[in-house]
Amino acid sequence: MEAWQAINSVRVVREFANRPLEPDHLTRILNAGRRTGSSKNAQRWVFIAVQDGEHLRQLAAVGRYAGHLAGAAAAVALVTPDPNGPRGKSIMWDLGRAAQNMVLAAWELGIGSAPATVYDHVLAGRLLGLPAEQDCSFILSFGYPADTSELTAPNRRGGRRSLDEVMREERW
Amino acid sequence: MEAWQAINSVRVVREFANRPLEPDHLTRILNAGRRTGSSKNAQRWVFIAVQDGEHLRQLAAVGRYAGHLAGAAAAVALVTPDPNGPRGKSIMWDLGRAAQNMVLAAWELGIGSAPATVYDHVLAGRLLGLPAEQDCSFILSFGYPADTSELTAPNRRGGRRSLDEVMREERW
Repeated sequence: MEAWQAINSVRVVREFANRPLEPDHLTRILNAGRRTGSSKNAQRWVFIAVQDGEHLRQLAAVGRYAGHLAGAAAAVALVTPDPNGPRGKSIMWDLGRAAQNMVLAAWELGIGSAPATVYDHVLAGRLLGLPAEQDCSFILSFGYPADTSELTAPNRRGGRRSLDEVMREERW
Repeated sequence: MEAWQAINSVRVVREFANRPLEPDHLTRILNAGRRTGSSKNAQRWVFIAVQDGEHLRQLAAVGRYAGHLAGAAAAVALVTPDPNGPRGKSIMWDLGRAAQNMVLAAWELGIGSAPATVYDHVLAGRLLGLPAEQDCSFILSFGYPADTSELTAPNRRGGRRSLDEVMREERW
């Protein structure tokens, strides 16, 4: 799959087939995150791969829209230094770049994903065994789609603003 | 180019050939950003494409490591609502995802890129004509590499931490 095709066709998948990820596929996803460029190459991230079913169901309680984690084949919890400090913008920008690499690498392998925003940081920290100075603000679900037609479905009309709305030339 | 190949091979390019981007190529890059998934599909971004040489040279003064903007064929200034408020983490995470999509789409077309962090937000706001409630924290340079061998150069050894260092299973 060409990069552009992956970028243009990827969609959020929240319902997954009941089978684990091929080990090579999970490794590819993690390497896609690992390879990501970051500010001053600081690589301020650790990726915790969760595949145990009970652990996934527990993680689904960390946020209001995190329920998809319960049915994921694997979750990747994205852990960083505290993003509430002065470096937070840069940490989150870098982390978003890594996440997109993982999402695209997965999609090319026929694996869907959905991001979950962590609301309950205390619970996430406890479930993931995080040291006090580490934070998990986002967790990605991965899995083969329950409905494989999602892999080839056309983009929904109106799902994104038009280019005219989103871009300017030279100045605002 | 397969998505994985783009993810794995893309590198920062800071020196660019002295020719403009093909219009179709710039449009592809902007559409890659536009197509990006975001929290609640909020699409909290505007992309300002800068191609005027004098404007690019002025923008190169917004940060300590932003000099590469002066020689870019085009810059894309990423504009968002104020990321210093409570939604800032989510805004920057989404923006990083859009940036990575643009970087990968460009790379597949033989276009290099480099991110610039904005240090002087007042100057950036003035040069880009931003309303007071809008912020530009990152600007991407794009251009065909001055040294085209950069497009196919192997990854540098030691450029990224190993997978063992970066990943954990189930818990920290």
